[in-house]
Order: sequence, then structure tokens, then C-alpha cells
Amino acid sequence: MRFDIITVLPGLLESPFAHSILQRAQKKGLAEIHVHDLRDYSENKHKSVDDYPYGGGSGMVMQIEPFANCIEKLQSEREYDEIIFMTPDGITLNQDIANGLSLQKNIIILAGHYKGIDQRIRDIYVTKEISIGDYVLSGGELPAAIVVDAVVRLLPGVLSDETSALSDSFQGELLDAPVYSRPADWRGHKVPDVLLSGNQAKIEQWRYEQSLKRTQERRPDLLD
Amino acid sequence: MRFDIITVLPGLLESPFAHSILQRAQKKGLAEIHVHDLRDYSENKHKSVDDYPYGGGSGMVMQIEPFANCIEKLQSEREYDEIIFMTPDGITLNQDIANGLSLQKNIIILAGHYKGIDQRIRDIYVTKEISIGDYVLSGGELPAAIVVDAVVRLLPGVLSDETSALSDSFQGELLDAPVYSRPADWRGHKVPDVLLSGNQAKIEQWRYEQSLKRTQERRPDLLD
Repeated sequence: MRFDIITVLPGLLESPFAHSILQRAQKKGLAEIHVHDLRDYSENKHKSVDDYPYGGGSGMVMQIEPFANCIEKLQSEREYDEIIFMTPDGITLNQDIANGLSLQKNIIILAGHYKGIDQRIRDIYVTKEISIGDYVLSGGELPAAIVVDAVVRLLPGVLSDETSALSDSFQGELLDAPVYSRPADWRGHKVPDVLLSGNQAKIEQWRYEQSLKRTQERRPDLLD
Repeated sequence: MRFDIITVLPGLLESPFAHSILQRAQKKGLAEIHVHDLRDYSENKHKSVDDYPYGGGSGMVMQIEPFANCIEKLQSEREYDEIIFMTPDGITLNQDIANGLSLQKNIIILAGHYKGIDQRIRDIYVTKEISIGDYVLSGGELPAAIVVDAVVRLLPGVLSDETSALSDSFQGELLDAPVYSRPADWRGHKVPDVLLSGNQAKIEQWRYEQSLKRTQERRPDLLD
């Protein structure tokens, strides 16, 4: 699977893609992540990519030309399944969307900045607009990294323990049960007896009840 | 405002905090962001911070001692308003939560990894559990960066244009209207006439209608 991310801040994404699961997935050849500097596709000598909004108002607007140039260059090299724009007014990312994207081959992600991007980019090129949640961020770079992380970890062979991704919260309908590790007694705070009992049937029963209880308390909407 | 982030992957967070608004906020002295390597607080010679879960099952569990050591060292140096654990079963981050956090002074954020963290850390130390959305990620580092970004940009003086943060989506009740910049005609795709009219009253009216329309189409829940 291949991601091409277009941004004015390519450096911001360096370390997230160079660690942990995203690094391993790339080393194993399971995912390719390419970050493109939007300024390289600017046609003016100052390499600027934004300008004032028509009609006035605060904030700068990212212009259509640099995005169009970069997208069309990429499209001349291979076919893309989706061109995603990260924006707070997009559809909210959830596990279903991540699962769906993990079945695609080539995805472009546009990371906006400033006040927004020229609406024509969205109208002409973008096939999916995704928000990672109802909060405002300084740019689309971290949201793009979130999408890549959520998707890449689902690719077969990326997680060392194949059962791990399937037993995550949101893959089933219940939140995870509490987990404990050593020491069994830490300053008087003890691990629940059942987990030390060795009785696997009882342990599974306890975990199911805890999952259910936590879901009822915290996210009853997941049970509907 | 000060953030202390505790993680096994401090390197992952280097570039997000070294660019854009987060970099500027730190340079201006408006925000301090400290990233702590959890392994430095491990008491064993292998610097390990995780172990098998009691009761069996897939995935490793982050142990209580390293977190306790790091948190208690930080608490001995200053008072913290919140100790936040990033977790998919926490309350979902939204703009209200970000606004509330921006009024605090010192915040610790715990970034989990592997299958989860020992429940006793959550029971004893954590004051707030936050999720950035209903999807599973490989760790809490990117979510921690999301929280820091959402909060820091709200601090007075961080954004160059003070009106920008207030006119964002989610700060009001409506999504932003479409924005356009030069050229006015791009391969036949034209900017709406009203934005070129110079009639500011008409422009504001158009923007309001577009905001309302976009909100009705995309997020009718925001209008309730």
C-alpha cells in the first residue's frame, strides 16, 4: 500500500513515520509513505502556495495550482484509489473507514494549513474528506499521520501478533477489559484475584463482564 | 503552559513539536513541551517497561512502576492540574475539552503502547482519560501531539492573527464557508461572482448561507 502526503511542512512528518509500526511496515515493504513538499509545485519564484481570500477576511487560503501540479504529476505515475483531504468538516474517521481504506492500494492525502484550501481543489480532485474529530488543529499533517497509522497497522503482516488488531477496542463492539501486569501487589494495590487463579474460563468470563461494564458506563452508544 | 509527555517513543514526537505553531509557541515562551522517555524510569537493568498480562492473552502490558516513578518525580517538582491518559475508551476530545485544557498550567500526558497500561496507573494517577476518536492507533504519541496542538493554538499570543482561532469551525456553531483565492478563473473553474463583487454585506450574507448549508448537509447534529 502506498500513501502520498502533500504538505507545506514535510519536516513535521519525519519522526512519526520513522518510528514504531510505521517504520517497521515500510522496512518490511508492506507500506510506502511519500511526503511531498507543496512548495516544490509552486509556479512562482517565491515558492508561495497561499494568497489572500477573495471577498476578504482573516487568514490565508492555499491556492489551487500547487496542489493541482502535484496531484497531476502523481496521477501520471500511477492510479489512485482515493484523494483524501483532511478537514474538520469532513466525515469523522472511525474504524470502519480505516478498515475500508486498508483495502486500497494508492492513496493521496492533502494536508491543509492556514485558513483553508481553495474550494476548487475539493470540488475537482478530492474524493473523500475526512476529519479525525471535532476539534481544530493547526494543520492537516498530524491528522494525515493519524489516518496512515490507523490504516497501516491493519495491513496483513504489519502487527507482530496477528490477533492483536482484531482484539482491539472498536474492532469488536466492546471496549477492552482492564489489563494488569507485574507486580501483583504494588504498594497494596492488588491485581484482581481472578486473573491469578489460573482458571481460564473464569478469566474470560470476568474479562467479558468488565468489557461490557466499561462499555455500558463509557460508551453505551456502541451497544446500540 | 507546560506539557510533560511520558512515552516509550520520545523520538516519534521530535518533529511535530519542532515545527509550525508548536515550535513558535515554545520560542515565544508561551508553551513548554517536555518529552520523557519512560525507559529512563524503569528499575530493571534491561530498561524494560512492559510484561505479560496476568490471566494470559495477546499483547504486552505497560507496567506501573516506570510510570509511577516518572509521574512522582514530576509531581515533586511542580503541581499538575491534570494527568491525562490517551486511550480509545476515554472521553472523546472536542473543542470544549481543548478550550478547558487551555486554561490549565501544567499537564502530564501518558502515551500508552502495546496492548494497554496496568489498570492501577489509571486508577491511582490518571485524572482524565481522553480519546481523539473511534479508531485504533499504534500508540498514544500521535494522540498526545493532537491534544497539545489543539490546546497550544488557543493560548493567547500563539496565533499571529488573534481572530483566526475564534472564527474556526467548532468555535462557533457552524462549519466554515468555502474559501477561494487566485486565480479567479482556473481552467474554467471560476470563483463565485459574489466574492469578486466588493459588496461586503452581500459577501457576509453569502458566507453565512454557505456555512449554514454546509452544516445542514454535513453535520446537522451541530445545529441541535
